[in-house]
Amino acid sequence: MLNGLSHVSLVVPDLAVAAQRLKSVYGLSIGPIEVNVTQGVHLAYVQLSNAKIELMQPTHAESAAGKFLQKNPRGGIHHISFSVDSVDAVSRELAAEAVTLIGDGTPQYNVHNERIAFIHPKDFLGALVELEEI
Amino acid sequence: MLNGLSHVSLVVPDLAVAAQRLKSVYGLSIGPIEVNVTQGVHLAYVQLSNAKIELMQPTHAESAAGKFLQKNPRGGIHHISFSVDSVDAVSRELAAEAVTLIGDGTPQYNVHNERIAFIHPKDFLGALVELEEI
Repeated sequence: MLNGLSHVSLVVPDLAVAAQRLKSVYGLSIGPIEVNVTQGVHLAYVQLSNAKIELMQPTHAESAAGKFLQKNPRGGIHHISFSVDSVDAVSRELAAEAVTLIGDGTPQYNVHNERIAFIHPKDFLGALVELEEI
Repeated sequence: MLNGLSHVSLVVPDLAVAAQRLKSVYGLSIGPIEVNVTQGVHLAYVQLSNAKIELMQPTHAESAAGKFLQKNPRGGIHHISFSVDSVDAVSRELAAEAVTLIGDGTPQYNVHNERIAFIHPKDFLGALVELEEI
């Protein structure tokens, strides 16, 4: 059902500051900064050898990432993302197990136009989990 | 400096319940349950195709994981872990950048007797980060 760990996502207060810090201290480079209007974030990825780190800066205070940042002003780990073959197929399997997917059922997409869905933390050991159809 | 994402670590209130849930709903199996006395946790790993999920149940309330669970009673994402070639070499590089490693400098080990170290969240975008010499 879950193919692998696609990325770990961090909310940061300032993407440019975060990118500079990752580069100067850890030698990590971020990719291009993109905007996900639906999720309300500017975001960029750090490609590691086997997975990615996602950095998200809220575009506004009322986005999910914005609310997270209000609770965690210096930022922190927001969610983990697993790759799946089919978001629809996995969603059906999870619905049969009474797992709650966040949202109203409208298909969601990441900035690369890949289908995504989010599992409520109560259904994954307290962790917010994203599914990505890659 | 950082070779790849080794694992994402979740604190859970009950390892047996978590294992059963991951198996029945997500088809994920945990490996053997081990104890890290120094870290104050029972732990087990889920091996994914490219990385692991670590599950930690505190052995006592005063361990770092125990304190996390008091703040997050249903559990949640505790830290992320990167593999490195040498904890000592990376620690020296980070010390030169004024990055704070948690602890008194005494070498720390995971349950597989691999050298580990932890970077304070203030020095990694709000995320608690483990380094593992694998």
